[in-house]
Amino acid sequence: MEETTTVQPRKDENVIYVGKKPTMSYVLATITQFNNGAESVILKARGKLISTAVDTAEIVRNRFMPNCKIADIKIKTEELTSEDGSLNKVSAIEITIQK
Amino acid sequence: MEETTTVQPRKDENVIYVGKKPTMSYVLATITQFNNGAESVILKARGKLISTAVDTAEIVRNRFMPNCKIADIKIKTEELTSEDGSLNKVSAIEITIQK
Repeated sequence: MEETTTVQPRKDENVIYVGKKPTMSYVLATITQFNNGAESVILKARGKLISTAVDTAEIVRNRFMPNCKIADIKIKTEELTSEDGSLNKVSAIEITIQK
Repeated sequence: MEETTTVQPRKDENVIYVGKKPTMSYVLATITQFNNGAESVILKARGKLISTAVDTAEIVRNRFMPNCKIADIKIKTEELTSEDGSLNKVSAIEITIQK
């Protein structure tokens, strides 16, 4: 595996946190990351927004980057402290898309 | 499209379609499948219900079956014909839990 010495963005920089904006915002953010030279992009989302992350990955793959692949999907449980101090568990997903 | 007939039928028996019932219904359905001898259970969900499928898998793993593992997670796009005849695309997830 030979690679040129172009600056390799660290993995952390390629994380996109999926929130409450329209899905296409995250699609655009993902495409932009790839256009900026990222080899992979990780979409992270929690709770109800998990479906938006899946939508984002599917739209990127089906409509914009037919050659990319879903390299990995992880699910986990995260603990969040809410404003009143109580501890809430919430499911989370991490979808790794590879160029 | 050729498909072997050996693998499919068995898998189908262990599929749980995640819908709009409370999450614990699907947790219970999953545990029941395992108690009935299933080696693996596949949770399937579409659209907004994807997060419920992830919640189900996480609750099964964290609270009831600490030794089970998430063997596979697939995402895809399905086409649905709505009542007025128009074609809608919807994301879907399949989570395979193994005993």
